Amino acid sequence: MSFDRVAVIGVGLIGGSFALALKRHGLAGHVVGVARREQTLLRALERGVADSVTTDPAHAAEGADLVYIAAPVGATAAILQAVASVARPDTIITDAGSTKAAVVAAAREHIGAGSIFIPGHPMAGSEQSGPVAARADLFEGKVYFLTPATDTPEAPLERLRDTLLTIGARVVICEPERHDRLLAATSHLPHFLASVLASVLAERDPAEPDFFAFCGSGVRDMTRLAKGPPEVWRDIFLDNRDHLRAALARLNDHVERYLAAIEAGDGEALEALLDDAREFRKGLDD
Amino acid sequence: MSFDRVAVIGVGLIGGSFALALKRHGLAGHVVGVARREQTLLRALERGVADSVTTDPAHAAEGADLVYIAAPVGATAAILQAVASVARPDTIITDAGSTKAAVVAAAREHIGAGSIFIPGHPMAGSEQSGPVAARADLFEGKVYFLTPATDTPEAPLERLRDTLLTIGARVVICEPERHDRLLAATSHLPHFLASVLASVLAERDPAEPDFFAFCGSGVRDMTRLAKGPPEVWRDIFLDNRDHLRAALARLNDHVERYLAAIEAGDGEALEALLDDAREFRKGLDD
Repeated sequence: MSFDRVAVIGVGLIGGSFALALKRHGLAGHVVGVARREQTLLRALERGVADSVTTDPAHAAEGADLVYIAAPVGATAAILQAVASVARPDTIITDAGSTKAAVVAAAREHIGAGSIFIPGHPMAGSEQSGPVAARADLFEGKVYFLTPATDTPEAPLERLRDTLLTIGARVVICEPERHDRLLAATSHLPHFLASVLASVLAERDPAEPDFFAFCGSGVRDMTRLAKGPPEVWRDIFLDNRDHLRAALARLNDHVERYLAAIEAGDGEALEALLDDAREFRKGLDD
Repeated sequence: MSFDRVAVIGVGLIGGSFALALKRHGLAGHVVGVARREQTLLRALERGVADSVTTDPAHAAEGADLVYIAAPVGATAAILQAVASVARPDTIITDAGSTKAAVVAAAREHIGAGSIFIPGHPMAGSEQSGPVAARADLFEGKVYFLTPATDTPEAPLERLRDTLLTIGARVVICEPERHDRLLAATSHLPHFLASVLASVLAERDPAEPDFFAFCGSGVRDMTRLAKGPPEVWRDIFLDNRDHLRAALARLNDHVERYLAAIEAGDGEALEALLDDAREFRKGLDD
């Protein structure tokens, strides 16, 4: 199952953790790390994430058995094109982007019939970023979506899935459109709200000197996601805008229901809404 | 500084923790606990929160040196009236409600000139509730607002403030209107969004059997507050509806700014918004 040469394009939290996980489980020979900035590459070497480094994705992908693209989704199509131009027909190419429909469309356009691209998305992101945040156990117990095309050959798909299972991930196979639609509500909308809420609070009246005294643990929870890398979330929001807009419309419907109860002074109706919300949340473990 | 007899009306997370904190610091002789349900009173006795219990606030307040009202804000005015009818002129009465303007107005109406009411609000709530969640160290390092009237006598105010400082709280004196206006943005709006977001997710398509696979740590953070007690938050939203509505309007303004950048495909503008939000959040410790 082991890969002799692995190219990890984007050696941040996700790519770096994937490299460390492969190494821990003896699944990688040589790992080539790619980043745009030299500083990031130096950190990746220090952290043991990569054995060698380069800023050129095509250079890294040459001769690779596995190419792992962990870049902002807006940059993935161009990387995919560069990688496909040098990949062997049996090279497995996968990505770790949070949206899948656009990258699937780009792959259809840019990748020759010979190359094998299997889109992926690990649910392992956090507000942390960079190679220093990488951890070999990041994927343990985490859901890892794969959204292969119906004509993806069985053998490389099995090989990638077994690799992910070995590093502890819970692999879920899913269609790209369904992935993007559900994630818009369960991931992109929550992140959007965290950032917008932080923006609201950021424009506080400067005449409120002890403003931070008013910020308790609740608002810290509700804005923590806003610490995530802006370039990553910029691309996700742009890429998945249709589903995000639909999720926001659903949110607004529910805001109106709450407000109607509040404006009417209808405590019973309001409590029923809060009760249902609480029941749902109790069904999610912490 | 010690109080011979303390009545704690509402022996849940806040009231129970206050009682435990007084006991730990030797600040209370006898604590009478009050709750509506016998089950809660039994738990309060088991937990050592109260030395004796009753379901009658007036009975508990008789002969008390300190009366601590930790009930949903919608119930506080009636409790205040019952307590004031039996309180001695030197009894210190305080509450722990999350909104302050309405209780101040109720106090003006219901409390005789003899009684001393000092409204308070500890920023120590969480999604936990009940006497089992009570902890003697709950207030340590937490902001504790006091919103006294301008004609509150200095000596009892000092005594209450010293008591709160002794149990580790950071006391902040604040006008009731300012308290409610700022908290609407920093606490009530975040909680509102957590509950509404949970409501959106609760109405998921039942044909999505592995829906929970799509729920990562982000959405858990963003809905955790929805586990809070519905009757408490019902009252806060009803009580502070004007400020909450204003905070929601500000949120919508910012949603529109984000959406304008997204609809225009303006990555630079969107990233700038996300950057500013991130900067604000980084200024809050975790």
